[in-house]
Amino acid sequence: MEFKISKELITQIETLVQQNNIVELESILHEIHFADIAEIMNDLDTPEAIYIFNLLDSEITAEILLELDDEVRENILRSLSAKEIAEELDELDTDDAADIIAELPQSKKAQVISELEDVEHAKDIVDLLRYDENTAGGIMAKELVKVNENWNVLTCVKEMRLQAENVTRVHSIYVVDDEDRLKGRLSLKDLLTTSTKTQISDIYIKKVDYVRVETKDVEVARIMQKYDLEAIPVIDELDRLVGRVTIDDIIDIIKEEADKDYQLAAGISQDVEADDSILELTKARLPWLVLALFGGFISVRVLGVFEPMMHSHRMLLFFTPLIAAMAGNVGVQSSAIVVQGLANNSITGSLWNRLLKELSLSLLNGSILAIILILGTHFLLGYEFIIGITVSIALLSVIVIASLIGTFIPIVLDKYGVDPALATGPFITTSNDIMGIIIYFSIARMVLGI
Amino acid sequence: MEFKISKELITQIETLVQQNNIVELESILHEIHFADIAEIMNDLDTPEAIYIFNLLDSEITAEILLELDDEVRENILRSLSAKEIAEELDELDTDDAADIIAELPQSKKAQVISELEDVEHAKDIVDLLRYDENTAGGIMAKELVKVNENWNVLTCVKEMRLQAENVTRVHSIYVVDDEDRLKGRLSLKDLLTTSTKTQISDIYIKKVDYVRVETKDVEVARIMQKYDLEAIPVIDELDRLVGRVTIDDIIDIIKEEADKDYQLAAGISQDVEADDSILELTKARLPWLVLALFGGFISVRVLGVFEPMMHSHRMLLFFTPLIAAMAGNVGVQSSAIVVQGLANNSITGSLWNRLLKELSLSLLNGSILAIILILGTHFLLGYEFIIGITVSIALLSVIVIASLIGTFIPIVLDKYGVDPALATGPFITTSNDIMGIIIYFSIARMVLGI
Repeated sequence: MEFKISKELITQIETLVQQNNIVELESILHEIHFADIAEIMNDLDTPEAIYIFNLLDSEITAEILLELDDEVRENILRSLSAKEIAEELDELDTDDAADIIAELPQSKKAQVISELEDVEHAKDIVDLLRYDENTAGGIMAKELVKVNENWNVLTCVKEMRLQAENVTRVHSIYVVDDEDRLKGRLSLKDLLTTSTKTQISDIYIKKVDYVRVETKDVEVARIMQKYDLEAIPVIDELDRLVGRVTIDDIIDIIKEEADKDYQLAAGISQDVEADDSILELTKARLPWLVLALFGGFISVRVLGVFEPMMHSHRMLLFFTPLIAAMAGNVGVQSSAIVVQGLANNSITGSLWNRLLKELSLSLLNGSILAIILILGTHFLLGYEFIIGITVSIALLSVIVIASLIGTFIPIVLDKYGVDPALATGPFITTSNDIMGIIIYFSIARMVLGI
Repeated sequence: MEFKISKELITQIETLVQQNNIVELESILHEIHFADIAEIMNDLDTPEAIYIFNLLDSEITAEILLELDDEVRENILRSLSAKEIAEELDELDTDDAADIIAELPQSKKAQVISELEDVEHAKDIVDLLRYDENTAGGIMAKELVKVNENWNVLTCVKEMRLQAENVTRVHSIYVVDDEDRLKGRLSLKDLLTTSTKTQISDIYIKKVDYVRVETKDVEVARIMQKYDLEAIPVIDELDRLVGRVTIDDIIDIIKEEADKDYQLAAGISQDVEADDSILELTKARLPWLVLALFGGFISVRVLGVFEPMMHSHRMLLFFTPLIAAMAGNVGVQSSAIVVQGLANNSITGSLWNRLLKELSLSLLNGSILAIILILGTHFLLGYEFIIGITVSIALLSVIVIASLIGTFIPIVLDKYGVDPALATGPFITTSNDIMGIIIYFSIARMVLGI
């Protein structure tokens, strides 16, 4: 557990590759976990990464393929023939193999599939390829242990030993009928503590959680988390057991979902990473910035209309960025809490109750901020109290309205099946900026009777 | 799997509680999974929730306790005697029991512990209470299956059956020496497929991943994800096996970590949920707003200094919110990508390389936005080209600087052990607002020669 990838190790490996020192390289790599080798390869140049890859056994390289960054994996796969790729896939579970095939260029897919050695394995992989990647069918593996309800425990244990050879982690033993329809489950523990003479139909648990091939992956994640499951069987349209989803697949989905909401809140519209190319990063970042720019045009217009009225109170103009910033910040807070609540299923009660709560909250926060603003405007900035009071009334109104909008929009989006996270970030700051400026000047005019 | 909690069901349960109709209630609740009962109880008033709780067996209520919202659990626990709480805890795994005890008021803790029936269980729970909750020791459970390296498989299987009674999911069988020091592991599958005559010392796997009691929980999560582990043993200062962490505990940590980053980016400084009280929500939201307000004071000052110089070009003032908003948005994007990269360990290369990449990216994005701005200012807003060009030069500079700051600050914070997520959200928008306005006016003055 104490292993850390150091810069020195990477430099050492680079040097050994350049020296073509296979013996030394093999002895170093032999000691390193495949997940760490993948991490090292992510840091190497493509030719060096390919060199390392070719040194290792296919048992390890197959696992490495799964752990590599997308870009590095693509480069490695491009350097391999269809037959070589097929050899890697023969080592992998069906779901992982299907994921890699799905990434290949169309022309190479059929070639690779035809080169797969194990026909059953190949059939299972092809089967998986037809499901949408965001459904239970798309994330399940075909590997599982199932027994027939009509068997006795002895047959069952024999069969299980055979099947378990191909299954990394057994979790549950599923019980099916002659038509392969899911009937229930047996726990491995039960089997350990039951005599071998018992009939399966007498001991299996009839209550079994399952999902259907078309269930959305985030829903599968929600069910597994809620009911604390480490694996869940997947059934098809005819109720036949066709695969199972394990908890490690779910962790990726939970992380992706959280990352996506985070990125949307930060104004990044695609799943990108710090290491992606400048073009990909631009594609993810530019759209929201363009939107914000057009929002900016509107605020220029609005200021152009109101500014001339402010000749007698020029200092009111100086507060525009303050008001716009507060409107944006409050809006983001409100929408983030709603988006997270929707994601965690913790939003209960009606829309009106929620808006009423947000109203109380924003009145409380807004009043405190308004008092600070009045004092700060007089004592820090040196303006008359009437200026601070005018701006404060506007601030309070802007905060209340911004937080109501921030609460309202994501809930309504969610109701109509649109991702509520879209309503966070630049979207809410831009619209609240404009709204804030309009309210501010309208109130300033009223209070000062301009 | 088709079960959904409907409003009708909740109303029905409320009515039955008021009618004191125990028979009907029990028959309804009997059909519902404990996780769903917990969700229903979260929606009920406290007296009704307590009523339901008292109807159910302690086997189920113990599980329900774990699933309830913090506030509801607190109310339920307050209604129970120390002896009743102890009865619930006797049903739970040590880690879950310790978590509940940790939440109790100080005076009740000792009472509850003294009422625990199973002395071994009580000892294990007390043991767990002394670890910091954010370490491996704080999240591990004492339940695990371990065998001595000097046993043979027959003794091992017998012992395992005994131990497995108390362990919900076996995952791995750990091998220890006579001093209880972790030596290796056996997989359940290996045991299924090995003859009973073999010696343990001949078959166990010596390579075993582990963490120490003091390892941080996020580090445990990182290791388990990276090496794809469903359980990891925990050893103490003397290398003795003292517990294990399972993957379901890790999911909560991954979610919490992601939620925390998201909340910081949205300007929420504590872990709150939509259903928390107004006071708690205010405590989480107000600090950043106050900070933003003081940032606003600075921008008032800056505008006060520059505005008088703009008499000949009043329209330049109108662009202030646009510039400030763009600076904020770009800064948040840059910092979010870095924060997420740091969290996922995908930030490689030196700080200078990263800044250089961000420089190219912001020059590309900035130039595109500058062109849109020049065209928009002329054709949409009707100003002379020189105005659009002046603002665009400022916009490009602001975008470049904002994105460099957004990249630089989180990396530096992380280097000095401060949570980089602090540098997202209101912090970056506020500082970039001010920076943006200063740069804007300075450039406008230079270009127009004011």
